[in-house]
Amino acid sequence: MPTIFSRIVAGEIPSYKVAENDRYYAFLDINPVVKGHTLVIPKHEGDYLFDMEDEDLASFTLFAKKVAKAIEKAIPCKRVGIAVMGLEVPHTHIHLIPINKESDMYFSKEKLSLAPEEMKRIADAISAKME
Amino acid sequence: MPTIFSRIVAGEIPSYKVAENDRYYAFLDINPVVKGHTLVIPKHEGDYLFDMEDEDLASFTLFAKKVAKAIEKAIPCKRVGIAVMGLEVPHTHIHLIPINKESDMYFSKEKLSLAPEEMKRIADAISAKME
Repeated sequence: MPTIFSRIVAGEIPSYKVAENDRYYAFLDINPVVKGHTLVIPKHEGDYLFDMEDEDLASFTLFAKKVAKAIEKAIPCKRVGIAVMGLEVPHTHIHLIPINKESDMYFSKEKLSLAPEEMKRIADAISAKME
Repeated sequence: MPTIFSRIVAGEIPSYKVAENDRYYAFLDINPVVKGHTLVIPKHEGDYLFDMEDEDLASFTLFAKKVAKAIEKAIPCKRVGIAVMGLEVPHTHIHLIPINKESDMYFSKEKLSLAPEEMKRIADAISAKME
């Protein structure tokens, strides 16, 4: 059965897309810890980052770097933090989180719930900064 | 002034070393969130992961993968999670954290303080699994 993320890539489940290329896809986390919280995933399935082949992991990291640079330009922040846990959805994903302080990365706190219009605006703002 | 991490690489400040090559260094976090919590750093200074050149970032990621695979073999866990925040020490570092549940990654909780003998034992156990 395809993962929820594969269904997002296939367009069967809508997402606030930030960027994509032939191998990878980036979209807003639907329950962000801060505004601009983005997920980056490979289009192929696989549930653990460190099981990716070296070439794929290196390419995936460089795609995440491009997305992070776009987030930095679109969202006021000191830098973009990274989290990879991957115990909830069995499809490799990197959390990219624009942070101003360490607690912006705390997954233990209550998540934000933003209006669809605002999610669309944030996704478009990041997307516009992709190089 | 060299960062505390550069002084660790230079051996001026002791660390529980897990692995190193000519460009990168891995050692136990002195205030781990769980046992086996490891930091991976480049030997050169630079304070932001996403400012690394593409080749360096890709190599650094693949070095972190090797360390993660060793942690998996040495520490009972479902997988190794990743966190990069970098607001405390101005020297790029990746946290590698052996996790069994998402809350094992919570930086908001109280950190562990382990005896030197136990830290040494953990570092040696991970180091022995490096390929």
